[in-house]
Amino acid sequence: MSTEIALLTADVEALTRRALLNAGARAEQADALAVSVAAAEADGIASHGLAYVPIYCEHLRCGKVNAGAAPRVSTHGSVVRVDADAGFAHLPIRLGFAALVPLAKQLGAAVMAVTNSYNCGVLAYHTEALASEGLVALGFTNAPASIAPWGSATPVLGTNPWSLAVPDGDGGVHFVIDQSSSTVAKSEVVRHRREQRPLPDGWALDRDGRPTNSADAALDGGSMAPAGGYKGVGNALMVEMFAACLAGATPGVSASPFSGTAGGPPRTGQFFIAIEPGATSGGAFDTTLQAVMKAFAAAPGARLPGTRRRAARTRHRDEPIAVNAAVHEAVAALAA
Amino acid sequence: MSTEIALLTADVEALTRRALLNAGARAEQADALAVSVAAAEADGIASHGLAYVPIYCEHLRCGKVNAGAAPRVSTHGSVVRVDADAGFAHLPIRLGFAALVPLAKQLGAAVMAVTNSYNCGVLAYHTEALASEGLVALGFTNAPASIAPWGSATPVLGTNPWSLAVPDGDGGVHFVIDQSSSTVAKSEVVRHRREQRPLPDGWALDRDGRPTNSADAALDGGSMAPAGGYKGVGNALMVEMFAACLAGATPGVSASPFSGTAGGPPRTGQFFIAIEPGATSGGAFDTTLQAVMKAFAAAPGARLPGTRRRAARTRHRDEPIAVNAAVHEAVAALAA
Repeated sequence: MSTEIALLTADVEALTRRALLNAGARAEQADALAVSVAAAEADGIASHGLAYVPIYCEHLRCGKVNAGAAPRVSTHGSVVRVDADAGFAHLPIRLGFAALVPLAKQLGAAVMAVTNSYNCGVLAYHTEALASEGLVALGFTNAPASIAPWGSATPVLGTNPWSLAVPDGDGGVHFVIDQSSSTVAKSEVVRHRREQRPLPDGWALDRDGRPTNSADAALDGGSMAPAGGYKGVGNALMVEMFAACLAGATPGVSASPFSGTAGGPPRTGQFFIAIEPGATSGGAFDTTLQAVMKAFAAAPGARLPGTRRRAARTRHRDEPIAVNAAVHEAVAALAA
Repeated sequence: MSTEIALLTADVEALTRRALLNAGARAEQADALAVSVAAAEADGIASHGLAYVPIYCEHLRCGKVNAGAAPRVSTHGSVVRVDADAGFAHLPIRLGFAALVPLAKQLGAAVMAVTNSYNCGVLAYHTEALASEGLVALGFTNAPASIAPWGSATPVLGTNPWSLAVPDGDGGVHFVIDQSSSTVAKSEVVRHRREQRPLPDGWALDRDGRPTNSADAALDGGSMAPAGGYKGVGNALMVEMFAACLAGATPGVSASPFSGTAGGPPRTGQFFIAIEPGATSGGAFDTTLQAVMKAFAAAPGARLPGTRRRAARTRHRDEPIAVNAAVHEAVAALAA
């Protein structure tokens, strides 16, 4: 008995779109999100692929996402501001990028703040969109609190990832980094609880700040271990400054959870910095980048971040994606 | 017998200035660097205080620093570019900030790339200068290669720190983060070798990429352990993209060492992003920041980054600084 089903990227997208429309999303919202779900599946990031669609639908139905959201974009100086109106993050980010890309190319650098937003899925999906326009992009997104400040056991900051995408100068992406401030993504701990498996060492802390292998202890009053100790906390705080404070969005300490149906819209934020490499480097960017990449290639065993993701994407241009059959069935039911 | 001597901040500055002038620095260069050396001593960062002055003088004499450097600043769009002309980083950064600060206030956000530069000392010193102007500042600086890509044992990236400084809205700095991409600063490993002490676990790797407690094995063909494993490498690569590639400066893999006299100027780079918080947050910055800070204050045991440094600075407004007597003697000799 097979537990996987082969789907084309276009199938994933169409299925997601129908499920979101059935749950009340506006067509534009559903389109923007469905493309990103298909991209996550193609990149081998199953956690943000079809498996997330039932949660998106539930969040439309319970009001955690504003199904009728009308994002607003405004530009002043080198700053694009986007109000996501408590809807999904994907459409407002895409609309904002339509203003950010020409602004960054014109001025050499520009930034974009997204407020009243929602979990933006795979952050690299967005920074890559900027890199494919020839811009170096640094992105931040915040999340409900689950990392404690160093010295404390009380969560104050989210697992707050940042992502950097670097263009290849040819309409593509040279490489992309997307890393959370915690040792692992919180969804991994949630998965271990669901599968009733113990956590590996170093992933989480209990309510007293002691290392724990219990997913229950981590999720019920505990916290996520920051990657690299106090430096992981520093990373999370840096991201919080951009995605919450500079975006004027809700900080992780008061945001409603990304999981479950309680608390209304999280209204968290995103922040993007887009830089035209020729403008800052006086034309030396490509040469310098090649020197770094050549050194990576020459170092035996060296892995460039995002390599696995890129390989999956390339493979899925020709081959169908293997999707968990139960996940497919659940989304198909929502799409019917 | 006392091994420390009490000095006022002004004494540290004057002593440094005379030593640098004696070694051939131009007055403007010496002034900018001397202020930063005094600030490092006041902040309790002895490694970048008077102890560094003999190295600065040596680097002026051997030509690793261009004693007659004439930094050039140019502005286009939202980008300030600074060519440090192979001199000390402090004067060109200060000159560039004179253009960056009004530009960021006018446009809402602006960036600054520094090329042909040198080790900029304490990175937070520079981001704090921007924060004291009311701007949120993110800074990057690169260094000669000493971190290996994940999966490899060959150094490709420097210990590459980033620093974030957040203004208090009142001409001061609310907090500052300054963290390298390695578990510890390389200078700590150098110090352990000098003092012939074994390294603590987790600091360094030998030439085969295996954990080592030997400072010799770490420094002779080995590498610095990245903080948080592969995420530390990601951090170092992100910093390299800004401080080397986007600045058009020399990447760590080909930069001459920051220590010793060989190889001529390292010509590494710095990159700064300055943001006017009101412009991106629609005026919500202060409220959101207060919410995060309140949560930090309410979390038992929580330490905000930069707290120790700030306490030292406050203390040294009234009290003299205790400087190692041998260090003082060495600098006094250079200043004579």
